Amino acid sequence: MPYTPTLAWKPLDGAEEAQLVAAHAARMERYAAFLRIPSVSALPEHAADCRAAAEWLASELRRIGAQRVEVSETGGHPIVVAERIEDPALPTIVIYGHYDVQPGDPLDLWKTSPFEPIVRDGRMLGRGSADDKGQILIHLAALEAMLTVRGAAPVNVRYVFEGEEESSSVNLEAWMRAHPDRCTGDAVIISDSGFFDGNVPALTVGLRGITYLQVDVRASDVDLHSGSYGGSVINPANALADMIASLHDTQRRVTVPGFYDDVTPLSDKDRAAFAALPFDQVAYLAGIGANTLYGEEGYSSVERRGGRPTLDVNGIWGGFTGDGSKTIIPAHAHAKISCRLVTDQDPEKIYAAVEAALRAAAPAGLQVEVTNLGNGHAFLTPLGDPYLDAAAAALTATFGREPLYIREGGSIPIAALFQRELKLPVVLLGFTPPDDNAHAPNESMDLGNFEGGIRTVIRALDAIAALD
Amino acid sequence: MPYTPTLAWKPLDGAEEAQLVAAHAARMERYAAFLRIPSVSALPEHAADCRAAAEWLASELRRIGAQRVEVSETGGHPIVVAERIEDPALPTIVIYGHYDVQPGDPLDLWKTSPFEPIVRDGRMLGRGSADDKGQILIHLAALEAMLTVRGAAPVNVRYVFEGEEESSSVNLEAWMRAHPDRCTGDAVIISDSGFFDGNVPALTVGLRGITYLQVDVRASDVDLHSGSYGGSVINPANALADMIASLHDTQRRVTVPGFYDDVTPLSDKDRAAFAALPFDQVAYLAGIGANTLYGEEGYSSVERRGGRPTLDVNGIWGGFTGDGSKTIIPAHAHAKISCRLVTDQDPEKIYAAVEAALRAAAPAGLQVEVTNLGNGHAFLTPLGDPYLDAAAAALTATFGREPLYIREGGSIPIAALFQRELKLPVVLLGFTPPDDNAHAPNESMDLGNFEGGIRTVIRALDAIAALD
Repeated sequence: MPYTPTLAWKPLDGAEEAQLVAAHAARMERYAAFLRIPSVSALPEHAADCRAAAEWLASELRRIGAQRVEVSETGGHPIVVAERIEDPALPTIVIYGHYDVQPGDPLDLWKTSPFEPIVRDGRMLGRGSADDKGQILIHLAALEAMLTVRGAAPVNVRYVFEGEEESSSVNLEAWMRAHPDRCTGDAVIISDSGFFDGNVPALTVGLRGITYLQVDVRASDVDLHSGSYGGSVINPANALADMIASLHDTQRRVTVPGFYDDVTPLSDKDRAAFAALPFDQVAYLAGIGANTLYGEEGYSSVERRGGRPTLDVNGIWGGFTGDGSKTIIPAHAHAKISCRLVTDQDPEKIYAAVEAALRAAAPAGLQVEVTNLGNGHAFLTPLGDPYLDAAAAALTATFGREPLYIREGGSIPIAALFQRELKLPVVLLGFTPPDDNAHAPNESMDLGNFEGGIRTVIRALDAIAALD
Repeated sequence: MPYTPTLAWKPLDGAEEAQLVAAHAARMERYAAFLRIPSVSALPEHAADCRAAAEWLASELRRIGAQRVEVSETGGHPIVVAERIEDPALPTIVIYGHYDVQPGDPLDLWKTSPFEPIVRDGRMLGRGSADDKGQILIHLAALEAMLTVRGAAPVNVRYVFEGEEESSSVNLEAWMRAHPDRCTGDAVIISDSGFFDGNVPALTVGLRGITYLQVDVRASDVDLHSGSYGGSVINPANALADMIASLHDTQRRVTVPGFYDDVTPLSDKDRAAFAALPFDQVAYLAGIGANTLYGEEGYSSVERRGGRPTLDVNGIWGGFTGDGSKTIIPAHAHAKISCRLVTDQDPEKIYAAVEAALRAAAPAGLQVEVTNLGNGHAFLTPLGDPYLDAAAAALTATFGREPLYIREGGSIPIAALFQRELKLPVVLLGFTPPDDNAHAPNESMDLGNFEGGIRTVIRALDAIAALD
């Protein structure tokens, strides 16, 4: 496999660069081996694959010289932990990633097979290449280079690689409380984010929270003949459409009572920061094959994504979905709905409000079940944090320009969890290109981002060691 | 298999009754053999099964002594035709049924397997037992008994058994025009309807029409990460819910412009006839496991089903529908929607109006495709028609009470087709029990209805022969 990254980065001075160059081919083979394990946490039939990915990762950590490597049980998929404690007097950095991935479907839209990774045009293609297995391997390659060349890391590191991030990290909080010795330190680096449009290096300083639910509605025991019954009984599919439609007004504001109560309005400074971000509307739309921007009136597209809460249907189904026509009234219909939340919105409170709004919009006599499938708080890192500055210096040294500071639309519940539970500074130092197709067909990682990421991590740990 | 029908009927006088009793066991075996062929016309993978059902039926017609038996090609599934012309001076009755069936899904709600028929508690269970293979076999058994005992039928009969009734009879009209000699006569008997609540013998004198469509909406090339994109692009699933919700108002009237333009308002006489029909709300709801009646304000339940047009979602799908959570904005979403129509509504005009309403309700920039999957006109038989009276007399003689005259909510496009194209009187003489679960899991035919149906057909043909 030729070594042809597409994003320029500056080599390290000295022997670590030589080690990294020499190890490149083997590193690519291990990258592909990791991606071949279909560790889809959301699908019960992949539970064994999740465990296999955890074991693979533990074995890799042992190989490179990490200490106290353990596949630690949770109520669900295990968490892989390891550490390298060089000296109790040095700062200790907790490094987080996740080895689970999104499902591979819809398979017919992949140009390659999601779990048969391949390098093409300077990118690694495959599910998890960017989100988040590739970013875990960036940290492992950095540690391997430092231990090989120096025999030590410049700071103490603790690795926490979970297996349920794509399933709302349902067991992580309890695990952290039960294992404080495996996740305490001076600061946390989370590598599960990416660069800005144009592949510009960036540090994510804001993330949205999330609440995810499923609504199941039923009106009869069996599908009914739409001629014999049509017009005289509730049609659950029509009712569900009505219920979903009722959640937005014509300005695309969410109508759920209380939804905006805890949303801090965007300040003039916030809006200026959003306006300063480069945004190429034509490229943005062309990148996803969309015709138009769309969303809450009164806000720009970057504000809508980074600074405002949303409500989206993630899936909907009911009745006859095959070819041709079947004249039934479905017995039941279903939807998965999630809200992206901004700071100060409480996910549990919003979940309850959406459930209540769905029930209020349902016709009397319809059976309605609502299930919470996961919650996560929103997150903000204060500008000027010394660990954030160390990461920024490492990015600048590696990629030759100051990073942008961005507030992302996605959710990494653990970011808020570390911040809220452990009271630690949290830096989101992520490396994926903005066109990584995470959560979509044809996910890929630019190998320039990947290789530059390794150098950035080494430089960042050195910069942290130099903090007074 | 014991001979235990649950609905009482009166035996024929004479040798035909003895022939029918003697042939019962063999008849049940043939009934099961016919049901074992999964002739699902809507699913392309069952095309060969549809042809097998047609060939089985043709072979059966030859066995009992029908003439000019032919499996006649159409652009889709073939039509089985046959006749028995005793004397050109006698009236000729065209008898219609359909050998295709609804899909078997959802399989998990069947107590038995849909295509492994079984007799239990006086019923034949299986897909097609009632709709409509069982009713075809009623006619064949009647002809077989008459030919065996008398050597002749009392009138001329022409059989037209199509294979696309559950797919909106898309090829039937063209076939009829190309084969006028196979479907002309003095009157038409269609056996694809049933008895009224309580299994009361009934003649269906009204049927609703139908237009069936699929709407496909798309906003991007691929599924998008709901965090990175949520709030800034159109969500096709939300948009489709909005579009569907816009088709009804809060009184459950259809809001499609022009929808009610050609609907003849119910007269006082119509409303009196509907009010005279026995309707047990508790039993009706319990029979389907529903909590409540529901529908257009200002109309009774029987009026809503028989006398008013409706719009129902038959299926809806899009995005992630597996277990757990996947945080995507779907690239596309889909629904199947059909309208039941009443006399004077033109299906093509209503289809165009619904398509226009869906497009008008879609946000700008959403790609919307609408496809017409079938149309059928509504139908009314005038009370006092002599062939209707002959059928009523046969029902009365067989089941010991006058039939009800009902307007059904379902659609049999061929009824309007014969009436409109061939200008023939059409009598809907159907025998299924009202709890037959047609189009649903656990479809079944009461063997009392089945056996009584055979006697009724013999009596009806004799009564028609006696018309002056």
